[in-house]
Amino acid sequence: MQNTAACTRPDLPWEGRGTNLDISGCRFSLYPMDDRFISIILDSLQKTDTSAVWGGSDALSTVYRGKLAYVADAVRGLFVNAYRPDVHMALEGQFSKGCPGDTDGDSYLFENQPPPNQPRVQDKHFSVLCKIALYPLGCENYIDHIAYVYQLAESMGLHPASIHYATRISGDVHVVFDYLEEVCAYMQEVAAHYVLTFTVSVNSPTEERN
Amino acid sequence: MQNTAACTRPDLPWEGRGTNLDISGCRFSLYPMDDRFISIILDSLQKTDTSAVWGGSDALSTVYRGKLAYVADAVRGLFVNAYRPDVHMALEGQFSKGCPGDTDGDSYLFENQPPPNQPRVQDKHFSVLCKIALYPLGCENYIDHIAYVYQLAESMGLHPASIHYATRISGDVHVVFDYLEEVCAYMQEVAAHYVLTFTVSVNSPTEERN
Repeated sequence: MQNTAACTRPDLPWEGRGTNLDISGCRFSLYPMDDRFISIILDSLQKTDTSAVWGGSDALSTVYRGKLAYVADAVRGLFVNAYRPDVHMALEGQFSKGCPGDTDGDSYLFENQPPPNQPRVQDKHFSVLCKIALYPLGCENYIDHIAYVYQLAESMGLHPASIHYATRISGDVHVVFDYLEEVCAYMQEVAAHYVLTFTVSVNSPTEERN
Repeated sequence: MQNTAACTRPDLPWEGRGTNLDISGCRFSLYPMDDRFISIILDSLQKTDTSAVWGGSDALSTVYRGKLAYVADAVRGLFVNAYRPDVHMALEGQFSKGCPGDTDGDSYLFENQPPPNQPRVQDKHFSVLCKIALYPLGCENYIDHIAYVYQLAESMGLHPASIHYATRISGDVHVVFDYLEEVCAYMQEVAAHYVLTFTVSVNSPTEERN
């Protein structure tokens, strides 16, 4: 289901906007807790193929836009390429599609090749901790979708656990990114507008009791 | 308006939960991009009075719960206390109230004193960059609330600008935290369930063209 309700309210700052194009997006920030954070981020960007997404950065975050498969692939590539065994690092972001304030621009949609990064990073495995929160907007049965993606995490072996305001999962980095992409693929079928926020963390010095 | 729809769906992992108590919460992570991130976080925790909120931490994030004024005060205190002029640091979090999966527990609600941190940190001023995204859940007119808080940012002199999937604001740290709290106070009056995600950032090395 596509978002068909473009916004025509003249009192809104995004008046007249809205898109029916197949544009997903991810806005994210990468946080290496390390003095070398600039070089870690720049090195990773250099290794990551972002040719299949539209990208923009400011001082707070980066956004990739395009078809879901390419957006998810670019974010995964960037995170795996930035990973260093000795650096505590977190990636915080939000996947989204269908915002009534969205536009037709700032996106690449005409790619037909396979996602470019996964083949390059798929053999690099490490464990990650992750928390997610799913926000289906504008629908009253939003709790049904949240329940579905909780159960999807269970079926993928990611051991979901409810915490206040979020769900925790954990597992191999690629299974977690597969899961995030699968949640987005599901949501764009069932909801006009959704947001999936996520935090992926590696090498935290905080020890947790099991 | 309080959330009166406790969740009774037996297929949901949070079956039977839900609360009508006045519990707001903030789940957040502090990211100092610096080798000293552990001591920066611990020093700040030591300086911050969290006696008016219930708190919990894991390897990914910390959550404070209680009445909004105390939760917002504790988060503000923690961030201001962690600030160092030479450290690039971000705070990512979500304020929330009204989740159908919430519980009556894990909260302090019986505080009557003024918020304890603001008097201690109010004279420490510095500029911050911030992005926010507001998600009113379960209501079809969610875009109206998003428009309202955009205009509220304008009226508080925070220069809001729409970016993909979020709104950017900037200003003095205390005006930004006042704004976040005011958005939450507004949302808990008009919506059964809302989430306000935010990123506050200082000392970014990324130069932006104006």
